Amino acid sequence: MVEQKMRFVTAAVVMIGDEVLSGRTKDKNLGFLAEFLAELDIHVKEARVVPDEQSRIVEAVNALRAQYDYVFTTGGIGPTHDDITADAIAAAFNVSIDFNAEAVAILQQRYDENDLNAARMRMARIPEGARLIENPVSKAPGFQIGNVFVLAGVPKIMQAMMVKLSDRLEGGSKIMSRSVRCEIGEGWIAAALEEVQGRFPNVSLASYPFYEKDRIGTNLVARSADETALGNAEAALNKLVAESEAGR
Amino acid sequence: MVEQKMRFVTAAVVMIGDEVLSGRTKDKNLGFLAEFLAELDIHVKEARVVPDEQSRIVEAVNALRAQYDYVFTTGGIGPTHDDITADAIAAAFNVSIDFNAEAVAILQQRYDENDLNAARMRMARIPEGARLIENPVSKAPGFQIGNVFVLAGVPKIMQAMMVKLSDRLEGGSKIMSRSVRCEIGEGWIAAALEEVQGRFPNVSLASYPFYEKDRIGTNLVARSADETALGNAEAALNKLVAESEAGR
Repeated sequence: MVEQKMRFVTAAVVMIGDEVLSGRTKDKNLGFLAEFLAELDIHVKEARVVPDEQSRIVEAVNALRAQYDYVFTTGGIGPTHDDITADAIAAAFNVSIDFNAEAVAILQQRYDENDLNAARMRMARIPEGARLIENPVSKAPGFQIGNVFVLAGVPKIMQAMMVKLSDRLEGGSKIMSRSVRCEIGEGWIAAALEEVQGRFPNVSLASYPFYEKDRIGTNLVARSADETALGNAEAALNKLVAESEAGR
Repeated sequence: MVEQKMRFVTAAVVMIGDEVLSGRTKDKNLGFLAEFLAELDIHVKEARVVPDEQSRIVEAVNALRAQYDYVFTTGGIGPTHDDITADAIAAAFNVSIDFNAEAVAILQQRYDENDLNAARMRMARIPEGARLIENPVSKAPGFQIGNVFVLAGVPKIMQAMMVKLSDRLEGGSKIMSRSVRCEIGEGWIAAALEEVQGRFPNVSLASYPFYEKDRIGTNLVARSADETALGNAEAALNKLVAESEAGR
């Protein structure tokens, strides 16, 4: 089994915020994180959206950090009373939370004395033992504690933080993918696809139907860390499509 | 307390599919469901994205159906081998799964005899005791079992199913919202906002910063079932903004 030699590194994402659950904000962070991490050969295996409630955040973070190699949270680290992520993470790890000298210094550099009010100072409250994550956009830092990375919710800030922290992440074996598109409904090729899957145990095959204006069809996607097997599976998919088209 | 007279109805969403976790498909279903359900005064309180793995689906569905009034799943009910939602739901409810006569009849009406192959017939496998959900787009039905509604992943099919099933849902008290937009950074008004929140215990206040090309600012949103309190809170927010602008 090729699988046993592979190192498969996993991640989960927790998106924190009533505004995503209400539909007011359409999440753009999961897609970015999934693709950014995939480039590092880290695979997002679960995501949760939770409200601005400490118990919900604690539950999600504790469930996921035990199951996956990395957890990324987005949202809830701003200056207002509904920004409770830092406190929730401290509670999840059962550590104290207080003003972090390094974070305070960053905010003092960013804001004039008059502007650095109590609300903004809240952004320097960091759980004990956490390591800061640089925020090159608006300065108020994120932080890492254990395998949990706490990021801003605003997409461009979150994305900049990911670039800054990426050297702390260690990916696994390289997973490659190949796609075969055909204008054949999923139902016509499902049996043949399952047969191909049976022949390539270390390749993962999936099918995604599409419905466009004037046509329907299916994208067949093969994924594997084994390039030879992947090439053979791709050839088998192309043969499957050719035979299905000829047989209709 | 006004809260005690209110009926607050909750929902959770489980999005099933490796393609959402890989970033290949950007989810459009959560936003739609959140807004559709909010119109019925049903509030999405949690969402999860899980891979095409039975154990993950079972875990998510069982955790959420115990906690929330309704659960909606999207994805994984097509004809291919990676479409395992129906089996996972049967496992979650610990019931058997078999061909459902009504679902078979729907597919027989949709497909010619030659076209209704074994793969497509899989779409008529429905957990015991489930009630079908009509699919006016591509016919293969969804289903409801207990408080769990199993929907297609393709947005336009899912949306059509929601319209069809909406008379099975019972909403709670009407929650209204008011928004106040200002070009003041969150950090400037956080303390004043918290003070307003303290004066309106049955109104929920939240703030959402925005960063546009040449300006930054904050949207302040008040939500409540109590229209009088909501109007008073809105007035307080407008006063807060006017005072903050005058004081800068």
